[in-house]
Amino acid sequence: MMIETLAWTSSGVRFIDQTKLPTEESYVTCTTHEQVADVIRNMVVRGAPAIGVAAAMGIALGVTNSRAESPGALEREFEEICATMGETRPTAVNLFWAIRRMQKKFRSLSGVPLAQVQQALVDEARQMHAEDIAINRAMGREGAALMPVAGGVLTHCNAGALATCGYGTALGVVRAAIEQGKNLHVYADETRPFLQGSRLTAWELVKDGIPTTVISDNMSGAIMRQGKIKAVIVGADRIAANGDVANKIGTYTVAILAREHGIPFYVAAPLSTVDPDTTDGARIPIEQRNPAEVTHIAGRPMTPAGVQVENPAFDVTPATLVTAIVTERGIARPPYRESLSKLLAGEGQSSVSATLKAK
Amino acid sequence: MMIETLAWTSSGVRFIDQTKLPTEESYVTCTTHEQVADVIRNMVVRGAPAIGVAAAMGIALGVTNSRAESPGALEREFEEICATMGETRPTAVNLFWAIRRMQKKFRSLSGVPLAQVQQALVDEARQMHAEDIAINRAMGREGAALMPVAGGVLTHCNAGALATCGYGTALGVVRAAIEQGKNLHVYADETRPFLQGSRLTAWELVKDGIPTTVISDNMSGAIMRQGKIKAVIVGADRIAANGDVANKIGTYTVAILAREHGIPFYVAAPLSTVDPDTTDGARIPIEQRNPAEVTHIAGRPMTPAGVQVENPAFDVTPATLVTAIVTERGIARPPYRESLSKLLAGEGQSSVSATLKAK
Repeated sequence: MMIETLAWTSSGVRFIDQTKLPTEESYVTCTTHEQVADVIRNMVVRGAPAIGVAAAMGIALGVTNSRAESPGALEREFEEICATMGETRPTAVNLFWAIRRMQKKFRSLSGVPLAQVQQALVDEARQMHAEDIAINRAMGREGAALMPVAGGVLTHCNAGALATCGYGTALGVVRAAIEQGKNLHVYADETRPFLQGSRLTAWELVKDGIPTTVISDNMSGAIMRQGKIKAVIVGADRIAANGDVANKIGTYTVAILAREHGIPFYVAAPLSTVDPDTTDGARIPIEQRNPAEVTHIAGRPMTPAGVQVENPAFDVTPATLVTAIVTERGIARPPYRESLSKLLAGEGQSSVSATLKAK
Repeated sequence: MMIETLAWTSSGVRFIDQTKLPTEESYVTCTTHEQVADVIRNMVVRGAPAIGVAAAMGIALGVTNSRAESPGALEREFEEICATMGETRPTAVNLFWAIRRMQKKFRSLSGVPLAQVQQALVDEARQMHAEDIAINRAMGREGAALMPVAGGVLTHCNAGALATCGYGTALGVVRAAIEQGKNLHVYADETRPFLQGSRLTAWELVKDGIPTTVISDNMSGAIMRQGKIKAVIVGADRIAANGDVANKIGTYTVAILAREHGIPFYVAAPLSTVDPDTTDGARIPIEQRNPAEVTHIAGRPMTPAGVQVENPAFDVTPATLVTAIVTERGIARPPYRESLSKLLAGEGQSSVSATLKAK
């Protein structure tokens, strides 16, 4: 079953509305780049890889809408569009990676007529979409061997088809392991405050017929102590050069619990999530979101007036708690500064290219 | 500000409805013991000490309603009433402690006329109510010294006035420390699925003007790592003879996080929560509650159809993670088998008796 998280269509960029799942499967089509920026900000689309491709498509859309009459005007407009996309969410580095890739493409088109620039940017964004799925498939192939032959695998937040252009990063590894015949049962932390686990991970896994149990975030320790969890696998929003991992708030707690119970803790992320310019996790900007996400659920107040609230969207898991990082070019093990930089410097993995060529 | 969690009134046993807080402060009055059993089961009243006194009042109510015409008929009816109360919730041992105390009182009234038996049982239940508040005040005096002079104190679930007859166990210690001039800021885990932290702890602390920040359960690790938490203090539903502590699901995770960050982890509970007949935590029955508490919030579905759910109401924190246990007779330190049995064997602490006499 293919979930189409986001797609370039003849009428605009179409997103499945992740704020409405699991009770309503509805779609939003954006016709301007400002609308794309809004759906990223409001988490209609979320997940680091999906945000990156959404931003690229937003840029392509903005340039397609351009009526610039000179190369200079187009360039100014292009940079404004990129700036708008870059101001949506600060933590996921894939956003900035995608913007840089579109900027590089744009610069390569100097002197080319507007219509061709527009088409080339649309093609680039669509190519990134196709690559993302191929990368996830490659990560699945690389990471499946890490999964247990049978048993429970805990995941936090949603690092699935809905967080990417399809198949998923962490859930891609789970899917690949199941395709290889492994007998996995996914435990999904509900992941307050946005409930990506109960609303999104559960929705896409149930759709795929993968056995899934939803638990409140504060149950994971007790479930691990009962011996039900054989491995943890999560996605990432930014991986620092030293292997520190920024991911959905609560990931750090899960990593500590995993170590306490002798359970391996894996991160699955494309190399576009690795940020060699961020030396360690302390330097990753952590987005603070609207307190209303904590104080209200389904529009209803769950806290008294006058109470304070914190709502960091992410936390940083130190590299020392990470057993391995699965990427499309292979598995990084500690020390990560070395293993990640080798993978970053490496050639594009043949299996990704092969998958793309076969399409 | 005095919160009246439960009270014996001329029209029945009155409870503040904890399922409606914090948006609605409404009261439920029970006129039969079956109604009291229902409000315990449905968590209109919750918290181990409050459950104990509620059960005692339910028994007093049942006997008050009795039209038994012979001592034998009254005794059968009494035991049926006790059985009904005992089947409400399995984990909090205060429930069984309270039933045993009412049984002992009942047996002491052999040969006494029905009207006097009824009055004596009402008096006993009301005495337990008064004692509970005195015990909490004593725990506050004992435990306040453990609190930091200033800074953040994390609590999980609600171990406050609403979990007791007033003042609270863990929050009683916080209140006493603040009364002594300590400058504390409470961080309240929201405590999914029932949200006792965001709905109840925040409500009663804000009412008292105590600075309070609500966080999602999965934020506690990140907040500790930021150095904001100087101590953790929670209540308990049952403490085994060896010091293992059953408390609200998620407490175990908080205890692991506290140790990881070098933060003391305290439990505050009356000695009626200590169960010398339960040798260790593995023998504590853990209540599994309705999956709908996890799948639905405010009546709205948050998970897709077809997903599995776990909903254990409690977990067990091993004694090795507990820095100290605050009781009304003093502070128990490891090894708990010795320290708890000494406190259990000790005379009623003078400050509790003094408080009661002064009333």
